[in-house]
Amino acid sequence: MTETPPAPSPLKADPPPLKADLDTLASLAKRRGFAFPSAELYGGFASTYDYGPLGAEMKRCIRDLWWRRMVQERDDVVPIEAAVITNPAVWHASGHVAGFTDPLMDCLQCQSRVRADHVVDDTCPVCGAVGRFTAERQFNLLFRTFVGPVEEAAAVAYLRPETAQGMFVNFENVLTTTRRRLPLGIAQVGRSYRNEITPGQFIFRTREFEQMELEFFCHPEQSLEWHAYWKQERLDWYRLLGIRPQQLRLRDHEQSELAHYSQATADIEFHYPWGWGELEGVAHRGDYDLRAHAAGSGQALTYFDPDTQTHIVPHVIEPAVGVDRVLFAVLADAYDEETDARGETRVVLRLAPSVAPVEVAVLPLSRNERLAPVAREVWDLLRPHFRTQSDDAQSIGRRYRRQDEIGTPLCVTVDFETLDDRAVTIRDRDSMAQLRVPIANLEGALREQLALVHPERR
Amino acid sequence: MTETPPAPSPLKADPPPLKADLDTLASLAKRRGFAFPSAELYGGFASTYDYGPLGAEMKRCIRDLWWRRMVQERDDVVPIEAAVITNPAVWHASGHVAGFTDPLMDCLQCQSRVRADHVVDDTCPVCGAVGRFTAERQFNLLFRTFVGPVEEAAAVAYLRPETAQGMFVNFENVLTTTRRRLPLGIAQVGRSYRNEITPGQFIFRTREFEQMELEFFCHPEQSLEWHAYWKQERLDWYRLLGIRPQQLRLRDHEQSELAHYSQATADIEFHYPWGWGELEGVAHRGDYDLRAHAAGSGQALTYFDPDTQTHIVPHVIEPAVGVDRVLFAVLADAYDEETDARGETRVVLRLAPSVAPVEVAVLPLSRNERLAPVAREVWDLLRPHFRTQSDDAQSIGRRYRRQDEIGTPLCVTVDFETLDDRAVTIRDRDSMAQLRVPIANLEGALREQLALVHPERR
Repeated sequence: MTETPPAPSPLKADPPPLKADLDTLASLAKRRGFAFPSAELYGGFASTYDYGPLGAEMKRCIRDLWWRRMVQERDDVVPIEAAVITNPAVWHASGHVAGFTDPLMDCLQCQSRVRADHVVDDTCPVCGAVGRFTAERQFNLLFRTFVGPVEEAAAVAYLRPETAQGMFVNFENVLTTTRRRLPLGIAQVGRSYRNEITPGQFIFRTREFEQMELEFFCHPEQSLEWHAYWKQERLDWYRLLGIRPQQLRLRDHEQSELAHYSQATADIEFHYPWGWGELEGVAHRGDYDLRAHAAGSGQALTYFDPDTQTHIVPHVIEPAVGVDRVLFAVLADAYDEETDARGETRVVLRLAPSVAPVEVAVLPLSRNERLAPVAREVWDLLRPHFRTQSDDAQSIGRRYRRQDEIGTPLCVTVDFETLDDRAVTIRDRDSMAQLRVPIANLEGALREQLALVHPERR
Repeated sequence: MTETPPAPSPLKADPPPLKADLDTLASLAKRRGFAFPSAELYGGFASTYDYGPLGAEMKRCIRDLWWRRMVQERDDVVPIEAAVITNPAVWHASGHVAGFTDPLMDCLQCQSRVRADHVVDDTCPVCGAVGRFTAERQFNLLFRTFVGPVEEAAAVAYLRPETAQGMFVNFENVLTTTRRRLPLGIAQVGRSYRNEITPGQFIFRTREFEQMELEFFCHPEQSLEWHAYWKQERLDWYRLLGIRPQQLRLRDHEQSELAHYSQATADIEFHYPWGWGELEGVAHRGDYDLRAHAAGSGQALTYFDPDTQTHIVPHVIEPAVGVDRVLFAVLADAYDEETDARGETRVVLRLAPSVAPVEVAVLPLSRNERLAPVAREVWDLLRPHFRTQSDDAQSIGRRYRRQDEIGTPLCVTVDFETLDDRAVTIRDRDSMAQLRVPIANLEGALREQLALVHPERR
């Protein structure tokens, strides 16, 4: 930590609008198996989604990219996995039971319960009535449940609204058992739950969501430097996912936006179909949380600095992002439509190979008993190395289109010549260019071609 | 699917008792950072645990081994990730709201609420009073919560008690979007929640737990063969985790144990400190679930068989296991104690490299400024290839013991000779044998040595 914080960068201008709106994305996601309305058989449920085979695979890619960069490749971060339902004292001490609220009002005209900050010009956002509301009340966003066989106040517990508190309450146990020195990051990936009044916009805001959070504990006097470091480091991470840089910007919070305990917070913003908005937060939380839990538990949560021989309360930098929201941004950024010479529309998800649920599709030219065993042989050859899929239904043209729609960077086609020359065709999703390659060289050729797939080529 | 089901095997006899009891395991887990009582700062919470750095890494290994074998290496299984809180109609149709219950009674003497089936000889398991209980009532194990800003009956929802229903309600969407034929497995890894009356035995039974479930949809007439296949396949999987075969057995359920809809169910049992008990269930669920959801939703959940041109309701084989329970079994099986020549006890976790949170520890002989950079160099060399840890605190003997306790198969020691000969010592956890290897050959030598670590060597 010798580098100095970079000067704040001016905000980026708006990029050209994305090619997909929300309905287009949700429809593609459902049609192809990225995400379905949850329990759609029963009419779905309250802005909740179930991830299908492609979505589950993509979420896995996103988690793995985060984990590799944030845990495995670092020597100053260790992981934990805390319980979703823990001692409610945690949420009392953290301030969530008292203060994790949104303001609500009831419309006296239509009886809808609405967020007070969504009532613009004294007008109900549901029925349009003017000026007829109950007084504003605070609504707590914690999901409550009851633990144990007696449903009474003593057994009330909460679903965690963030994974972060797991790192704070386990800080001392982690520090002791790993015998580490500062700086020390504690990372966690897992679901969190917020009883949002108005979830929506597909998987952008859902009541149940999966977080990837790092709490990075450091010396107070180095905390601003680390905050600057993590802003840049996190922004860089999105390059690995292939999101175009034009769609991303760093925005430092104004003094008036900061929580009372925060010295600085920045958002990594994505340019959504509705404009710039938060994708990831990189917060400087100071020593607020450790002090809150020290007060709540009556225990000293300090770090003994062996160099200065003093006890200090570390400061914390927190880069926190949701897997679902990253998936949303990746899909929104990748969606493209082209019109071909015959006026037909080609839908292409221009996913980076790092997040494509299928990296290589193996397609026999047609469903044929002579081609099938060779296609199977090629598939077996590739499966240990790439995320693959095989498909022999319908015409080759329609199958290329289907692979384009799910973002498969490369297709390998097995045709009748293959039976003679033991070569196959690699077809590139973006350029639609084709390349003939001997099966013997296929793995290497695919690696080369995958390395060329890049968002800047668009 | 041409193989015939193997004949039922006779039950295995008991192996020698495990060397660790529950307290020993829980204490080691806490001392070394596998698992802490959740929110221990606040006195813990109701048999809930937070996984520390080593436990989180081990859980990740277990999940990855399951995923690779059950999804990635197969061509007949696809993944999903469904919501924990979904439409409550799912749990009505599945029968959980009406029937997912345990029998409860209140002791009139001490007012404890106890499981009726735990009251032996009419005696309260808490206070010992005889024959003084309220009538037996059914207690539902579903966790309830309230979704949306109005806490009223209409907004009641449940935390899923199993991931399985996510596969049933999404069966048709998955089938359609993947355009697959039977047999087709749908796999999911994720947390489930059961409001158990008596959780306990460390992480063996917790109210919040992580499941790895496969619902394997197949032709009814092949279902018994597939059931036999999955019993063996799942038993084989535990070899990858290094659990000793003597600790595991397959037990087919008696006719009287079977659910009314099940044609067959088997447990993979582990010999716990308290005897044989379920580790994993491999259930034949017939067409019960698809029919239940067809009835609940009013939709036809059938599969059109292109060969016979008929609509059928597939049967389902379900191998289901908890990550936490597997972790428990792995730790319990691996725990060992030895007495050395001086009468000192050496605690060793004999973990297979596949699940060891640290595969290779890099230890400078002592904390020394000449050794430190070489140790760092060796560590950097190994980190891309192995799960590694570096440690330079306290004597080398104590550090070996610490690595033994967390199950690290190999230690690499950098000593003063290393500065001259560019060689290091590999120390084997089980035999404590040492081997001198040039740094240039270290990666390969470690791979060779890791391949030799095997539970049968004990």
